[in-house]
Amino acid sequence: MRVAFQGVHGAYSEFAATKFFTAKCTALPLERFEDVFAAVEQRRADRGIIPIENSLAGSIHQNYDLLLAHKLYIVGEMHLRIEHALMCHSSSSLKHITQVRSHPMALAQCSSFLSRNPMLKQVPYFDTAGAAKFIADNEVRDTAAIASELATKLYGLKILKRGISNSKQNFTRFLIISRKAVKPDRKAKSKSSIVFVPHSNETGILFKILGIFYVRNIDLLKIESRPDPDSPFEYLFYLDIAGSPAQNKVAQALEHIQEKTRFFRLLGSYPVGRGKFNGGV
Amino acid sequence: MRVAFQGVHGAYSEFAATKFFTAKCTALPLERFEDVFAAVEQRRADRGIIPIENSLAGSIHQNYDLLLAHKLYIVGEMHLRIEHALMCHSSSSLKHITQVRSHPMALAQCSSFLSRNPMLKQVPYFDTAGAAKFIADNEVRDTAAIASELATKLYGLKILKRGISNSKQNFTRFLIISRKAVKPDRKAKSKSSIVFVPHSNETGILFKILGIFYVRNIDLLKIESRPDPDSPFEYLFYLDIAGSPAQNKVAQALEHIQEKTRFFRLLGSYPVGRGKFNGGV
Repeated sequence: MRVAFQGVHGAYSEFAATKFFTAKCTALPLERFEDVFAAVEQRRADRGIIPIENSLAGSIHQNYDLLLAHKLYIVGEMHLRIEHALMCHSSSSLKHITQVRSHPMALAQCSSFLSRNPMLKQVPYFDTAGAAKFIADNEVRDTAAIASELATKLYGLKILKRGISNSKQNFTRFLIISRKAVKPDRKAKSKSSIVFVPHSNETGILFKILGIFYVRNIDLLKIESRPDPDSPFEYLFYLDIAGSPAQNKVAQALEHIQEKTRFFRLLGSYPVGRGKFNGGV
Repeated sequence: MRVAFQGVHGAYSEFAATKFFTAKCTALPLERFEDVFAAVEQRRADRGIIPIENSLAGSIHQNYDLLLAHKLYIVGEMHLRIEHALMCHSSSSLKHITQVRSHPMALAQCSSFLSRNPMLKQVPYFDTAGAAKFIADNEVRDTAAIASELATKLYGLKILKRGISNSKQNFTRFLIISRKAVKPDRKAKSKSSIVFVPHSNETGILFKILGIFYVRNIDLLKIESRPDPDSPFEYLFYLDIAGSPAQNKVAQALEHIQEKTRFFRLLGSYPVGRGKFNGGV
């Protein structure tokens, strides 16, 4: 099983992949999220893993846009606790550090620590493990990285400070994508992810659409809106609902919603991941 | 009238401010969005201007979080068409350029142009005009910036290519923030922005809350969800609705919603800006 992920070895996505597939996978590092989707589409990978939501920073909107642009299916989800550490070259120390390099989302997740240390200039970088690799490869002594402890070990760096996230409640939800949809068992706990554009000529259309699920006692787990790239100032909605079309009421709701939308797609039905992000709205 | 904005002179926010206040304002450049909020709170500025939503890239979530964290009011909105240009040092030319520096959102908005030109390495920077200033200040010849034509003129740079956005329909919505709320006239076209956390012990709670507006014929203009930083895996909802509490039905709806939420705040009622982002969901 080859699993494509964005980033370099030591990335949180790779760690999530090894947890989800219980280490029986070869992780394929790629530069951009687009590359992950393309690798699965073009059969260079069997599955892809992408972060979709973080409990502190919110949704990774680019990946919602890519789910829409590519014809792949969500076949699973995985929640991972994110534990950021500040690290530097083994021959450096805190007093030599003038800048911190990391992914903008990791910098945002550590904003309290960084605002208590204003002498550390923030430098956005493409990914967390990549920032660690940059320090190791170039033997940079004035720069620290924010990344996982896994990256520290992998690149032989030194930890300056552990647990620098604003909150211990820092979880990322990852999605597993595949060329072929899965059909969850009717009895297993499952969820379905859909995307739609409501008919724009009807007032209160979003209320009516949510009613489709409400009257059938189908729980709404997440709602997210994105500007529709094809018609500016209209919105695409991404919804996670409890259940799968293996249940009659869900199959009927997904028929019903097509009467109220000018675009609709089922992105996938899949077993609910253990852990977080299953609140309900 | 002193108006605080994030970025350096030549930023789109500054341009929006001069349009909104018809040039009768002194624009105060500040490094971070937090600084804009703080400057207004601490009376170093009379108003602040912040981007909140872009028709291609979506919402600027950080500013939603800051609206929540600070006790300021939204008193107006402004829509600006964003026209990106590729620019370089006056003594350089396209064949010398190996990297493009700009704000990550501007890079994303020009992703089609950039993927057609893979030899241009993308370097994220703190803002668009700042990238232009960086080239001018350091006389860098291997780097281009993506910024406004205004920035080109201001920093004496050379335009390499105009109109490089993925779409001509590239608009940003800006909010004007102030220490004192305004009360729009009952007859003027107005909108209200609210934020709330639904009671979590009720199923279909979001459907019921949207019903509060539906049954009163109050149009919903925008809905946005964000993770609640105080209780992970619950969501805050940001809603824009048509009208202001000067109308009875809106005042009643805003009373009613407090029965269904464990947190509620009216961020401001203000005159509707001319132009875009007034669709309705």
